Amino acid sequence: MKRLLLTAGLVALPGMALAEGEAAAHSQFIFTTLLFLMGGFLVFWMAAGFAMLEAGLVRSKNVTMQLIKNVSLFSFAALMYWLVGYGLMYPGDAWIIPGFLGAIAPAALEPVGVGADMADVSYASVGSDFFFQLMFCATTASIVSGTLAERIKLWPFLFFVVLLTGVVYPIEASWKWGGGWLDGLGFQDFAGSTIVHAAGGFAALAGVLVLGPRLGKYKDGRVIAMPGSNLALATLGTFILWLGWFGFNGGSQLAMGTIGDVSDVSRIFANTNMAAASGAVAALILTQVSFGKPDLTMVLNGALAGLVSITAEPLAPSLFQALIIGGVGGAIVVYAVPLLDKLKIDDVVGAIPVHLIAGFWGTFIVAWTNSDASFVTQIIGFAAIGGFTFVVSYILFNLIKGIVGLRVDADDEMRGLDVAELGMEAYPEFTNA
Amino acid sequence: MKRLLLTAGLVALPGMALAEGEAAAHSQFIFTTLLFLMGGFLVFWMAAGFAMLEAGLVRSKNVTMQLIKNVSLFSFAALMYWLVGYGLMYPGDAWIIPGFLGAIAPAALEPVGVGADMADVSYASVGSDFFFQLMFCATTASIVSGTLAERIKLWPFLFFVVLLTGVVYPIEASWKWGGGWLDGLGFQDFAGSTIVHAAGGFAALAGVLVLGPRLGKYKDGRVIAMPGSNLALATLGTFILWLGWFGFNGGSQLAMGTIGDVSDVSRIFANTNMAAASGAVAALILTQVSFGKPDLTMVLNGALAGLVSITAEPLAPSLFQALIIGGVGGAIVVYAVPLLDKLKIDDVVGAIPVHLIAGFWGTFIVAWTNSDASFVTQIIGFAAIGGFTFVVSYILFNLIKGIVGLRVDADDEMRGLDVAELGMEAYPEFTNA
Amino acid sequence: MKRLLLTAGLVALPGMALAEGEAAAHSQFIFTTLLFLMGGFLVFWMAAGFAMLEAGLVRSKNVTMQLIKNVSLFSFAALMYWLVGYGLMYPGDAWIIPGFLGAIAPAALEPVGVGADMADVSYASVGSDFFFQLMFCATTASIVSGTLAERIKLWPFLFFVVLLTGVVYPIEASWKWGGGWLDGLGFQDFAGSTIVHAAGGFAALAGVLVLGPRLGKYKDGRVIAMPGSNLALATLGTFILWLGWFGFNGGSQLAMGTIGDVSDVSRIFANTNMAAASGAVAALILTQVSFGKPDLTMVLNGALAGLVSITAEPLAPSLFQALIIGGVGGAIVVYAVPLLDKLKIDDVVGAIPVHLIAGFWGTFIVAWTNSDASFVTQIIGFAAIGGFTFVVSYILFNLIKGIVGLRVDADDEMRGLDVAELGMEAYPEFTNA
Repeated sequence: MKRLLLTAGLVALPGMALAEGEAAAHSQFIFTTLLFLMGGFLVFWMAAGFAMLEAGLVRSKNVTMQLIKNVSLFSFAALMYWLVGYGLMYPGDAWIIPGFLGAIAPAALEPVGVGADMADVSYASVGSDFFFQLMFCATTASIVSGTLAERIKLWPFLFFVVLLTGVVYPIEASWKWGGGWLDGLGFQDFAGSTIVHAAGGFAALAGVLVLGPRLGKYKDGRVIAMPGSNLALATLGTFILWLGWFGFNGGSQLAMGTIGDVSDVSRIFANTNMAAASGAVAALILTQVSFGKPDLTMVLNGALAGLVSITAEPLAPSLFQALIIGGVGGAIVVYAVPLLDKLKIDDVVGAIPVHLIAGFWGTFIVAWTNSDASFVTQIIGFAAIGGFTFVVSYILFNLIKGIVGLRVDADDEMRGLDVAELGMEAYPEFTNA
Repeated sequence: MKRLLLTAGLVALPGMALAEGEAAAHSQFIFTTLLFLMGGFLVFWMAAGFAMLEAGLVRSKNVTMQLIKNVSLFSFAALMYWLVGYGLMYPGDAWIIPGFLGAIAPAALEPVGVGADMADVSYASVGSDFFFQLMFCATTASIVSGTLAERIKLWPFLFFVVLLTGVVYPIEASWKWGGGWLDGLGFQDFAGSTIVHAAGGFAALAGVLVLGPRLGKYKDGRVIAMPGSNLALATLGTFILWLGWFGFNGGSQLAMGTIGDVSDVSRIFANTNMAAASGAVAALILTQVSFGKPDLTMVLNGALAGLVSITAEPLAPSLFQALIIGGVGGAIVVYAVPLLDKLKIDDVVGAIPVHLIAGFWGTFIVAWTNSDASFVTQIIGFAAIGGFTFVVSYILFNLIKGIVGLRVDADDEMRGLDVAELGMEAYPEFTNA
Repeated sequence: MKRLLLTAGLVALPGMALAEGEAAAHSQFIFTTLLFLMGGFLVFWMAAGFAMLEAGLVRSKNVTMQLIKNVSLFSFAALMYWLVGYGLMYPGDAWIIPGFLGAIAPAALEPVGVGADMADVSYASVGSDFFFQLMFCATTASIVSGTLAERIKLWPFLFFVVLLTGVVYPIEASWKWGGGWLDGLGFQDFAGSTIVHAAGGFAALAGVLVLGPRLGKYKDGRVIAMPGSNLALATLGTFILWLGWFGFNGGSQLAMGTIGDVSDVSRIFANTNMAAASGAVAALILTQVSFGKPDLTMVLNGALAGLVSITAEPLAPSLFQALIIGGVGGAIVVYAVPLLDKLKIDDVVGAIPVHLIAGFWGTFIVAWTNSDASFVTQIIGFAAIGGFTFVVSYILFNLIKGIVGLRVDADDEMRGLDVAELGMEAYPEFTNA
């Protein structure tokens, strides 16, 4: 009897050890999957943030259009990322051109009730990864819609979004996050200061150059203010984005199942918040000092620029470094917004300063906090992704312009896109105009 | 010494094995409880979504009333679900009429610091289950308030809500989720396309038939448009609902503590998002094609209809099937909204097309993706719950109408319920009227 | 061979036992850290809730100012809590005056990829704790901004916020949560009815006494109504706060890694929701009964007062007790708001009734549900924290008033702070005024 038990004990030992290791692995899989689900719904929420921010910063005659653009761009992004984007971005070993061009295959989920034998127990469920990554793709498109507001037609814009989210973003993102050539080069971009934000900013820049400024924006050498119609909405949008960013950066740790990983996610949350706060304070103080009055829209964009700046590396910095990185981001916005106006680049919501310029700053400064990063490589990565996105977007916008037209006619622009294109006002009982 | 140690080892083995199994069970309990807490707060957030959607789609003179209705209906639902609803819905073995009518007992939580001996370690904490299920009950009531907006009195409406959330919803929900007769029949409704959404839609339909259309809505055979006062708010509400739906469907997996379960939750998130996106795109394209102009409110309702459609079975479909299911849901809305107007059913926010009709579609189509479901049983379940909810609601609305009156008088309706009933305008400084 | 295996087994046993215990501890660390991250982002979201609530309850001419105050106060709180607050609040063994005054040292995170050897495996990651606690500090400041709206200057207000969040709040909070003298006394305040809410209310009261009422608020013995400009926004803000409160109270369990702890978090979620619902219903019924008309702003504040009331002890009460505690909170608001007006204390959003008075009620009533609490100790704790916060705030406001001035001049107040101080209207196209 005892003998038997002893044998049983001996036999059980390796099994138990396995079970032990297995249990830990399973638990890590669950935690990391949960991180992606939470991160994913938080980044989804950013789509609402962009919608509110942009709806608040355009004039009331274009609000319905801005809302329909935002809901639609997210929806098209969801379809396109499934159809081609995810495959292009994460080709695994199935690159068409290794390191440069991924695979073409719709995303597929693991089977219902997948077992440990078929799941990648060292990572997370495919469904959660797809869900999380899809939200990043959609974010890139959200950035573009703000800059081009108040004069671009709906369908040409959405056609561009289809190509941006299905092809352009996934390709450039694959260069780093899919294990492509920029990853091999040592380029670092933790959660996408360049890959998501600057890329969105470069697409917006291409669009605005093709599209031109709003009618009456630049007159006789002066810049005509066109104040946003609803700053409460713009502030709400900023808070939503700030909240969503915890998922954006925190989820990009890509693991939560160990003490080290969950503590890293915590560092990221704390640094992300610090950079946003610091960006807002920098913009508040600098608008007071430079322009004599604190400027709410600058403070909002300052917070966002702080967030973009810390996105390339939210983990390594100390809280003090995060303060510096975010604060410089906020300062960039204060001076880049008027600079763009000088160049007659009419960016309705300030997306180019916030996402492209602060995105450069955030990418560049990684070499300060990370000993294994180099300023040169960071610039190469930024230039490669920016150049690719800008050139392709510029060609696409010109093609669309040539084939179906990009811009509403002058009369419609003056009446507002809501009445002219949609026949539906956002605030039919309110406006004085 | 060695002998002793060996014995200790032998003695310890079963204990350790138990501990191993226990630890895994505890961890599953914690994960599933966490799923309910997260799912619950996300579905709570849907109450805000309905409030914003409805406040945005009514005219400004009725906004305060719509807001107070939404906050109050949620609050009454919370009280009633505690007092009787939870007991009626989950009677365990204590049915009054087995399979048809549950128990009457207020909900009670497990004691503070409950141990493994008293908790259901194979499931989740009672408190989290109550919290999660309460939110579904409140959702049912939220659906009703939109349809009946702009003419129903506050207190009669709230009296109906008390009965709907305390009695009607819990009884029909018990038939499936409480293990009642529809569950025995094989009826399938994963997260409540029928049980929550169509039931809410049927209650709304009963109410609108008793209440009649708004004054001036149907005149000389024409339908008079009464545009919503704030489409930014309506869009925000839709984004909130979309976000909350991840909790609504994902939490309905009812387990998150294994690789299979958390991967299933991931599938649900991805499918839920796909159906919403597809519903929005379908509505966008179809309003362009059918009416010549894209229609924002249709796109919003299209997304919601996609969500309702996937709710009966968000787990089994592939992403492509989710796209089809959601897209058909979106299409339904585009053609059902004008159809209801033809029938002079004045549904202010389109809740009947979104929740009842798309709810039918979603329930029906489960038999396509689930080999163990039958179209006939799905129809029986839908008809039973719909018929019960409609008939009881119709009787209740008529009783309330006969006893205390249901509708504000014509003069108050023209002035708006805010001034007439509440003496408080939502936007006192803005309206032109 | 067998012999060897046996030996291996024997040697492995203690190691495995350790691994078992370690794995459980690691998992608890991860769960609790996750609780703080989730709780933290939910409480962060409350900053948006306060911003929307206050922006909705002020007149449209002061909305931009209220928005910039809310974004800025959160941002300064984030900087100050890092720089001095966290150290003052959690001095560990490094008190300057034991039990009364903590340490002065900026917060620092644990290193990247921290291991079990350096982490406090029985608790949670430092980063998550800092992130979570920071949000409570910011909440205290949010409470103040509503009361003082529509007449206090931006920079003097922010200067007060810097001192409140950097010094005043951390010191009084350390008395209980940092293990100071009130903790030794047995004072109980689970999530901060006194420490956060009443403290914020006392600071607001000090401010309003120094600042005085808005021009024209009290005229010839009458109270002039100054209706909020956007009740949809105020309702959204309330829903946001309600949502965030699940994190506020739930996270304050400070542990989620056992069956008992996660079940306690569930109890807290359910009780928190019940108290809010009950507070709203109480205010709804009482405004109907007492004033003849239901009052939306009272219902919103009733829900918030219910939440504040349950915050001192959201765990111990049964659901029925939570209903009573929250309901009394709601009732308090209905009668305290007019009372303050009688005393000519012009609290723009009702923050003093909601946070200070209901905060007292919630703190006091802990002795009903908790056998180890005493009414006397609860009153002592409330008086100590309230007295300290009030006196220091009163002195600070007077100092600021004397040195740089606190209030905009009468002309600017009439024109509105948006145009006068910021040159930027929140709704430039809407207002009739």
